[in-house]
Amino acid sequence: MTEKKNIAIMGAGLVGSLLSLYLARRGHKVDLYERRPDLRTTIIDGGRSINLALSDRGWRALKGIGIEEEVRKVAIPMRRRVMHDEQGNLTFQPYGKEGQAIYSVSRGGLNVALMNLSEPNPDITYHFSRQALDVNLRTNEVQLRNVETGETETVQPDLLFGADGAFSVVRGAMQKTERFNYEQHYLEYGYKELTIPATGDGGWAIEKNALHIWPRGNYMMIALPNIDGSFTCTLFFPYEGERSFANIKTEEDLLNFFSEVFPDAVPLMPELATEYFENPVGSLVTVKCFPWSYEGKSLLIGDASHAVVPFYGQGMNAGFEDITVLDQMLDSFDGENWEELFHRFERRRKPDADAIADLAVMNFIEMRDKVAKPSFLLRKKIEGKISEQYPDIWIPLYSMVTFTDLPYSYAMETGLQQEKIMKKVMKHIKIVEDYNKPEVQQLLEKQLIKKEKLKKYKARKV
Amino acid sequence: MTEKKNIAIMGAGLVGSLLSLYLARRGHKVDLYERRPDLRTTIIDGGRSINLALSDRGWRALKGIGIEEEVRKVAIPMRRRVMHDEQGNLTFQPYGKEGQAIYSVSRGGLNVALMNLSEPNPDITYHFSRQALDVNLRTNEVQLRNVETGETETVQPDLLFGADGAFSVVRGAMQKTERFNYEQHYLEYGYKELTIPATGDGGWAIEKNALHIWPRGNYMMIALPNIDGSFTCTLFFPYEGERSFANIKTEEDLLNFFSEVFPDAVPLMPELATEYFENPVGSLVTVKCFPWSYEGKSLLIGDASHAVVPFYGQGMNAGFEDITVLDQMLDSFDGENWEELFHRFERRRKPDADAIADLAVMNFIEMRDKVAKPSFLLRKKIEGKISEQYPDIWIPLYSMVTFTDLPYSYAMETGLQQEKIMKKVMKHIKIVEDYNKPEVQQLLEKQLIKKEKLKKYKARKV
Repeated sequence: MTEKKNIAIMGAGLVGSLLSLYLARRGHKVDLYERRPDLRTTIIDGGRSINLALSDRGWRALKGIGIEEEVRKVAIPMRRRVMHDEQGNLTFQPYGKEGQAIYSVSRGGLNVALMNLSEPNPDITYHFSRQALDVNLRTNEVQLRNVETGETETVQPDLLFGADGAFSVVRGAMQKTERFNYEQHYLEYGYKELTIPATGDGGWAIEKNALHIWPRGNYMMIALPNIDGSFTCTLFFPYEGERSFANIKTEEDLLNFFSEVFPDAVPLMPELATEYFENPVGSLVTVKCFPWSYEGKSLLIGDASHAVVPFYGQGMNAGFEDITVLDQMLDSFDGENWEELFHRFERRRKPDADAIADLAVMNFIEMRDKVAKPSFLLRKKIEGKISEQYPDIWIPLYSMVTFTDLPYSYAMETGLQQEKIMKKVMKHIKIVEDYNKPEVQQLLEKQLIKKEKLKKYKARKV
Repeated sequence: MTEKKNIAIMGAGLVGSLLSLYLARRGHKVDLYERRPDLRTTIIDGGRSINLALSDRGWRALKGIGIEEEVRKVAIPMRRRVMHDEQGNLTFQPYGKEGQAIYSVSRGGLNVALMNLSEPNPDITYHFSRQALDVNLRTNEVQLRNVETGETETVQPDLLFGADGAFSVVRGAMQKTERFNYEQHYLEYGYKELTIPATGDGGWAIEKNALHIWPRGNYMMIALPNIDGSFTCTLFFPYEGERSFANIKTEEDLLNFFSEVFPDAVPLMPELATEYFENPVGSLVTVKCFPWSYEGKSLLIGDASHAVVPFYGQGMNAGFEDITVLDQMLDSFDGENWEELFHRFERRRKPDADAIADLAVMNFIEMRDKVAKPSFLLRKKIEGKISEQYPDIWIPLYSMVTFTDLPYSYAMETGLQQEKIMKKVMKHIKIVEDYNKPEVQQLLEKQLIKKEKLKKYKARKV
């Protein structure tokens, strides 16, 4: 039915590469233009978000194109959070129900896997070391510079997808059009990547199937496992202030600080000082914009339209879900009016992109501060019990985001309602067993019936 | 004390021109660079926000440099809102207490007055028709193009002020620096300027000392008086939808629509159709950003750092207040650390700039919708009575913003508290006389004592 299009995707990262597979499956001819050289022949840049947490929304998009099993081979399930306190004591919090997990994958490894899966397709062509200099949205002409040879060329696809990330060049062009809403907001925190290497026998130095957190109030370190036995640690730390990147100037400053606040990690990080002073400080930006498309000729997707901070582990998952949603819309698309299709897509996804952006900022506070508190862990246990007792009514917010395909915006709204109920419930609870007290059970029944009624009422209104 | 600086101001609009006077008074040498030709020798562009409401914050800044009286000669006091309904019936709402008013001034006229007052100063030089092409924030070099001759030149001032408005080139350069927070948001409404000319004998066709509103729910027209007897009308109207700019395509569409919804205005607007189809549709943007300065060498001021929509009549007033605040800070400045001065300035002004931006968006709903409702007018009357009875505790939000120099952020916060109290009070009130009912008086006493206590508590905490 649909007319075959010449499609250019700017950016051959995770979203661009996966999108190429989905578009080629519908018979389109796809060219990907990537600023960096081919990851498979060049050493990957170190020091920058080199592993990611893949969860249900991401898996769904991989499954949709039949490559879930390939990726699962290189993914490590993380079943719980392990919190490390300042004495090296551990506490634990499961991520979901029995059997549920999020998966640690290497950004580079996953990108290579997606490239290897898509490149043999005769309708997909990768062009590396191509920097987009300028995009003319009216004509869809993109001026590209080959960063190896210095030569420039101009391409003019039928459709242009901007999968070129948080600092998207395609979005930059849209920003110059009339009435483009745009927002970039930086946290006062940066991040630095460090390593816990594999043990001598190639094993994991700390619990393998977990996401480790050293929560310290206004800052934190986390660690995610890699398949080679190492962990990638990320220190999220203020730029300025008493305890900040600005105030760690010497190796002595660094070791004093780490020994004091991350004492159990230090012996596991032999390259700490070298890595700390060599690796760059990354910034943490949220980008929101609207619209995401221009005249049915170009469309932003993934981080280009909605860059989020990493604290919900949803950046890639949200980008992959963009592809799932677009593909669903293409199922019933007659191939005629791309402008209307793109408008439907951006209107559908925008509230969810905004929601996950806001949830990600909120979750930073939970991770760096709240998870260290016994009251928080008690509350999570109680919430687990509510969810067990009322499985149809109550899915915890984290689970809605991570283990379902409920819209992010619905998850956030429902999460705020749950928050209110939890506040009331926790007034009656000092220990887990208090959950069975009649007043708690009565309160819950009353609150949840109210909630159900509201839901039904809302459902009727739709 | 202070070392004399070579200062460049980008933009010779209202804020740039007034700022030049304040800076020259302190002995600095000031050059102003303006993209447009000299307003005094060229016909002013029509169709774009050609009059403004000057209120207390603006007057204070004019008084601070001794030019208040000069400007007062060309300003028309507007003492109340006059609402026109669809049958041409009028209702009224005073802006403040007896003697309080906002003042209609012509943007062009005020700009010319400021230029005429500043240009004779040997330390102030205007350079017209100079378009800033590029700003190098590190070196403070600005590349300028003479739009008349096509020649380019580069200037390198000690200090650079970006008074170059909502689409500031200086801010554009800051946006390319690390961790610059930025937000531009457009309303789904545009505006179009129209005219009610003076009557045959040079008088005003409708009440002179008033701001006229034709509130129509989701859109409105307003009119402000000019000294030549005419009124400048502005239609604020959705871009898209049933009643929108998009749907008025022919003169017939236009006249049908205007005759239906603005019947009393149509006979007063002989050039309606010509103006409507010739004048452009202006867009309504809010711009927020942070920081406002770069390394103590450049500073954004006025719309460049905080463009607001026009519905509180505070855009120019807020920009002028920037100057008042900066000048106060310069009083105790030793001339050494401009970086610290600029940081103090931006931290001090940012919450107030954010507040007036948000208040301006909220006031659009009040103007286009609420002022048409008897319940709103009743409520305003009751609020007036409260303010009369408790003058030290209760200044209405509009009055705080318009007739005081209380920080905008304080006004907004207090306004939200007042809103809550008014909701409670209005439950007991059907007619103005109900204000004297004992339950109303008791409620007020209770609420206001609580408020006073809270205030005192907060004051202690500072």
